[in-house]
Amino acid sequence: MAGNSFGTLFKLTSYGESHGVSIGGIIEGCPAGLKIDFDFIQLQLDRRKPGQSNITTQRKETDQVVFLSGIFEGKTTGTPIAFQIINEDHKSKDYSHIQDKYRPSHADYVYQEKYGNRDYRGGGRSSARETACRVVAGAIAQLLLKLEGVEIHSYVQQVGKIVLEQPYQELDLSQVFANKVRCPDELMAQKMIAEIEQVKKEGDTIGGVVQGMAFNVPVGLGEPVFDKLHADLAKAMLSINAVKGFEYGSGFNAANMRGSEHNDAFIIKEGKVRTESNFSGGIQGGISNGETIYFRVAFKPVATLIQDQKSINKKGEEVVIEGKGRHDPCVVPRAVPIVTAMTALVLADHFLRNKISTLS
Amino acid sequence: MAGNSFGTLFKLTSYGESHGVSIGGIIEGCPAGLKIDFDFIQLQLDRRKPGQSNITTQRKETDQVVFLSGIFEGKTTGTPIAFQIINEDHKSKDYSHIQDKYRPSHADYVYQEKYGNRDYRGGGRSSARETACRVVAGAIAQLLLKLEGVEIHSYVQQVGKIVLEQPYQELDLSQVFANKVRCPDELMAQKMIAEIEQVKKEGDTIGGVVQGMAFNVPVGLGEPVFDKLHADLAKAMLSINAVKGFEYGSGFNAANMRGSEHNDAFIIKEGKVRTESNFSGGIQGGISNGETIYFRVAFKPVATLIQDQKSINKKGEEVVIEGKGRHDPCVVPRAVPIVTAMTALVLADHFLRNKISTLS
Amino acid sequence: MAGNSFGTLFKLTSYGESHGVSIGGIIEGCPAGLKIDFDFIQLQLDRRKPGQSNITTQRKETDQVVFLSGIFEGKTTGTPIAFQIINEDHKSKDYSHIQDKYRPSHADYVYQEKYGNRDYRGGGRSSARETACRVVAGAIAQLLLKLEGVEIHSYVQQVGKIVLEQPYQELDLSQVFANKVRCPDELMAQKMIAEIEQVKKEGDTIGGVVQGMAFNVPVGLGEPVFDKLHADLAKAMLSINAVKGFEYGSGFNAANMRGSEHNDAFIIKEGKVRTESNFSGGIQGGISNGETIYFRVAFKPVATLIQDQKSINKKGEEVVIEGKGRHDPCVVPRAVPIVTAMTALVLADHFLRNKISTLS
Amino acid sequence: MAGNSFGTLFKLTSYGESHGVSIGGIIEGCPAGLKIDFDFIQLQLDRRKPGQSNITTQRKETDQVVFLSGIFEGKTTGTPIAFQIINEDHKSKDYSHIQDKYRPSHADYVYQEKYGNRDYRGGGRSSARETACRVVAGAIAQLLLKLEGVEIHSYVQQVGKIVLEQPYQELDLSQVFANKVRCPDELMAQKMIAEIEQVKKEGDTIGGVVQGMAFNVPVGLGEPVFDKLHADLAKAMLSINAVKGFEYGSGFNAANMRGSEHNDAFIIKEGKVRTESNFSGGIQGGISNGETIYFRVAFKPVATLIQDQKSINKKGEEVVIEGKGRHDPCVVPRAVPIVTAMTALVLADHFLRNKISTLS
Repeated sequence: MAGNSFGTLFKLTSYGESHGVSIGGIIEGCPAGLKIDFDFIQLQLDRRKPGQSNITTQRKETDQVVFLSGIFEGKTTGTPIAFQIINEDHKSKDYSHIQDKYRPSHADYVYQEKYGNRDYRGGGRSSARETACRVVAGAIAQLLLKLEGVEIHSYVQQVGKIVLEQPYQELDLSQVFANKVRCPDELMAQKMIAEIEQVKKEGDTIGGVVQGMAFNVPVGLGEPVFDKLHADLAKAMLSINAVKGFEYGSGFNAANMRGSEHNDAFIIKEGKVRTESNFSGGIQGGISNGETIYFRVAFKPVATLIQDQKSINKKGEEVVIEGKGRHDPCVVPRAVPIVTAMTALVLADHFLRNKISTLS
Repeated sequence: MAGNSFGTLFKLTSYGESHGVSIGGIIEGCPAGLKIDFDFIQLQLDRRKPGQSNITTQRKETDQVVFLSGIFEGKTTGTPIAFQIINEDHKSKDYSHIQDKYRPSHADYVYQEKYGNRDYRGGGRSSARETACRVVAGAIAQLLLKLEGVEIHSYVQQVGKIVLEQPYQELDLSQVFANKVRCPDELMAQKMIAEIEQVKKEGDTIGGVVQGMAFNVPVGLGEPVFDKLHADLAKAMLSINAVKGFEYGSGFNAANMRGSEHNDAFIIKEGKVRTESNFSGGIQGGISNGETIYFRVAFKPVATLIQDQKSINKKGEEVVIEGKGRHDPCVVPRAVPIVTAMTALVLADHFLRNKISTLS
Repeated sequence: MAGNSFGTLFKLTSYGESHGVSIGGIIEGCPAGLKIDFDFIQLQLDRRKPGQSNITTQRKETDQVVFLSGIFEGKTTGTPIAFQIINEDHKSKDYSHIQDKYRPSHADYVYQEKYGNRDYRGGGRSSARETACRVVAGAIAQLLLKLEGVEIHSYVQQVGKIVLEQPYQELDLSQVFANKVRCPDELMAQKMIAEIEQVKKEGDTIGGVVQGMAFNVPVGLGEPVFDKLHADLAKAMLSINAVKGFEYGSGFNAANMRGSEHNDAFIIKEGKVRTESNFSGGIQGGISNGETIYFRVAFKPVATLIQDQKSINKKGEEVVIEGKGRHDPCVVPRAVPIVTAMTALVLADHFLRNKISTLS
Repeated sequence: MAGNSFGTLFKLTSYGESHGVSIGGIIEGCPAGLKIDFDFIQLQLDRRKPGQSNITTQRKETDQVVFLSGIFEGKTTGTPIAFQIINEDHKSKDYSHIQDKYRPSHADYVYQEKYGNRDYRGGGRSSARETACRVVAGAIAQLLLKLEGVEIHSYVQQVGKIVLEQPYQELDLSQVFANKVRCPDELMAQKMIAEIEQVKKEGDTIGGVVQGMAFNVPVGLGEPVFDKLHADLAKAMLSINAVKGFEYGSGFNAANMRGSEHNDAFIIKEGKVRTESNFSGGIQGGISNGETIYFRVAFKPVATLIQDQKSINKKGEEVVIEGKGRHDPCVVPRAVPIVTAMTALVLADHFLRNKISTLS
């Protein structure tokens, strides 16, 4: 009930504060016999880790994952898969200046109020460092889904006012990681990078949008009523730090549309039931229909600035939050592997759930 | 795991198909001793029921809820609260013409594929009739939250291209139910009604947006990491039929913003910790901070049209779906009490969860 | 969290007080496509219902189950199966004399203390009437398990000091329901019946033991560590009203044994891995090994007597509980179908859980 | 669903194989602000660790627990408490001789069949080494319960045919850990030790019984119907390795009793509602009534012998399991802190659950 677990059958329980000994988690429900590709997992982590480029935080972490259980002779055994990532770059002293201060738009105040105490070092549990655990579990989920042919991709679609207008169908998704901003269109990528560099120079931060997609998802994933596939995707995405919005398929634009233009006509194509358009975003009635699942995730600008900000402290006194600390000027480049991971967790969970929905 | 339950401590499990004997549910975890205002519950149901006006479906249901357990001498006993609503207006014969056909952008195809069989009468389990159960449980959740001073409101903010631009602070929320479209601005309401009537005349449907708000929410509701308050709100809203998107606080607009303009400065106001702006939407780090929670929910246009549509049947043959049946030309007026109910379910659940987060 | 659900994938949530409108429940997770044998379900209920013979309570209930959802054209649809049983024989006035009194060894006092109020009519939620819901759900679980060849049997092994010493292997289990006490040995059955009749004549009650067995259970059901198959059986049995103990396989007798006599040697028999002895009770390391699962469940004597008893009331004053009311002089005959039902619920749940334990 | 978690609000998820890197777990739901007594936790672990005396296994493990998160400045923060215990004494080579063999009455065969592969080193996940994690979590649960005045004790009541007949009320529970067999009666303790030493000399093993008790439990813990307090205790105990039976209060003896002798009369004693006798074992209708909770747990003899045993291997060939390996001749001395830990986990969970059962 304390909100540290995600998933029902394929389930991650994570632990750890940004400045504790380590972060990590336990993955339950991964079927026995899955071959683990350790390089693939580490690659996902590397795409998320800090210090990758000049447009990410300079905090230094190698983020090497170590598995502690549940894997034997390279395969999952059906028992819980525990893992940990050591926190190398503590520098806890960095945070003494904010011990009693509430940073604007951070979780300092609400944690203090909710729990009566808090680990104030670097955000503690509220730090986005926790998302590394999601990336590990999501990578294993991807390994499971790949056996079914499912492919998941995410990319940066927007940074501030710079928006990649082309739909995903017109993009070369193999190029997402060809640049440091993770936008598959090289021209737009350069504009986004320039924007982030400018923002950074000003000691400011900026928001953005990540687009997520899942290809070749089998028909039938998702449960009616409350655990609709897109409802679980929405929760997954909104649970990522800094996310403010989620839309799938036609999204908010659907509000402007007529039913006669929005309906996706069923057709037979190459012997399979398909839809002509895909405003449904690959999900109808909460259940995957075999078309591509796609959605957009909005991220706010990072709250840590290199500018002094007025705030208050625990006693209610006015204080100044000094503009220092290491942080990302824009989270979306590092959010790309996180969106992918969370998508994989949702789909792997619903893949297992669907396996027991009928007698056969 | 089958997705028919919502909530963890305050929990609704619902059942029922649109054309079965009844729909209903079991509410678990409602604390003992809560006085039940039956009129309040029925009022919420009346706001959702079909046949209310010329801009809703003409299906006739009185939607009288009957409680079967868990209430004794007007108060909850702590045992499960079961309730049912009889389905009066079956007219199952209406649906024989679509028994083997897949209606575009409905759940017919995915249910058939997922389960191997389906109750094809009126959408069966995928019918929005199920949301009546949410309204009942949500009304009880509201009764619980009212004891804490929490007030929940929702209204129609957009129908097609007609958008109420004023923020909620400038609206008279007591006027939401003064008109049949549930928009508190009378002028805009008339425009929206005219738009829906026009769309209906054309045998078409149209989408819209509902805005939800919760006032006076105590600080501390929401759990870190996966069960952030807004993540659970997102899931709650996306689980409502026809919803395509969710954003809270600054929402998608945050993607365009700088941190320096987006951060909500802490101040002391009337002796309490408050924020100057509220781009956070009343939630920071996934936990309520005492400011007003507000969010927007996008609904697609209803998929049932009074126009013939091409589709296919179970055998993969091309068929025509005839344009008939009773349906809403626009769902948002009836969605207003549903958005309120789901908000209440999320907040009641997190209210109970927060009660055990500290020793005191 | 309120304890009204049983199971994880195959799950019953029950509701209802003994003197409310009805009792009933919602079954989630039953796979789609299961053919429902309504007569089989009613037969199980009939074996549990009151008023069957002179050795059961004379309360009159026909206990006709009505299904409200989740079944279409005789088969499960994969959506929740709701059902209810109307309470016919309320006679609520019978209970006014105990409204403020705490009956000895009943739940009156603890409900009052826990919840601050209670439905005092006939035990309310604590009445064993609730077990009828378990029988309905257990019957559906049995229908599912029968497809796998699993057979579940239970019988009365002990009433007071009258003990059927023969092991189950030497009994004709087809004769369990040939007599009203549900003991397959006719001679012992007559002794047990005489004992119960004598106890009843004295206005007293008596305890007993039910033996449960599951034959042809596939290898692999049960989860390591906390959800061992026998741990879930133990919880299932102890959750039945009046149960005081559970042992499986060698049970408490194992405490007296040496490892060299207790170990079950593996052998090959008819080409299959089997064990020579079965002190393990068909479960090793918490997982079924293909041998017969067997266990014993101890029931206390019913607390309602036809004798006056001293007690106290809400105010703490000494009062007399008058010896009246309808009740069973011994619960074990009617407990037989309940033990069978709970066994089926555990096995059906673990059958589904096991389906997702490996990749294949 | 994979059975590695225990509890609902106060919840342990454990991981680890006996011969992996480490074992450990994540505790969720422990309220913020609890002062952690690290010495108390380690003391519980020391009472369970191997190599304590000549009547326990000679495997050498210091079993030092390291906490990784959730504790800051000596107090719980409300975030997950992760911990690990390094496996020091791997000696994995010890197990190569049984890689393909199924040891009698061990979990080798069922794990292999269930998962298709297994970590055969020392039992892997099925090893009782996992119970160290329960002891850590149970110790923290005890710290929480101590704030409420709850005291939990367990002792060895039986080893083979040597039975301590005195009820717990006549024993000096402060003497449980005064001897290596953990029986508070020194004379009986010496007999039990002699018995275990004799059994060990013969290369054999022997079963036993542990009695558990909880004093000063507040009225109201436990949930009606499925999560009765004693049902959860039964599951907790049966989930411990080698347990074959559970009874509470009058237990199996209740089957022999009349209601007139079994009923616990309510009385007022020192201004409080009490019962004259306590056949109910401190629990009525599944809810604690303020009297002492007591129960008995039966353990089978350890399956590992220093005697050669016939068995089969994966191919179904007859093989001999050589009598070697380090193991306990009798598990009950080391089981005492495990029974205490599991009791604490159940009570702490129900303590939190009860906090939200009423409005106040």
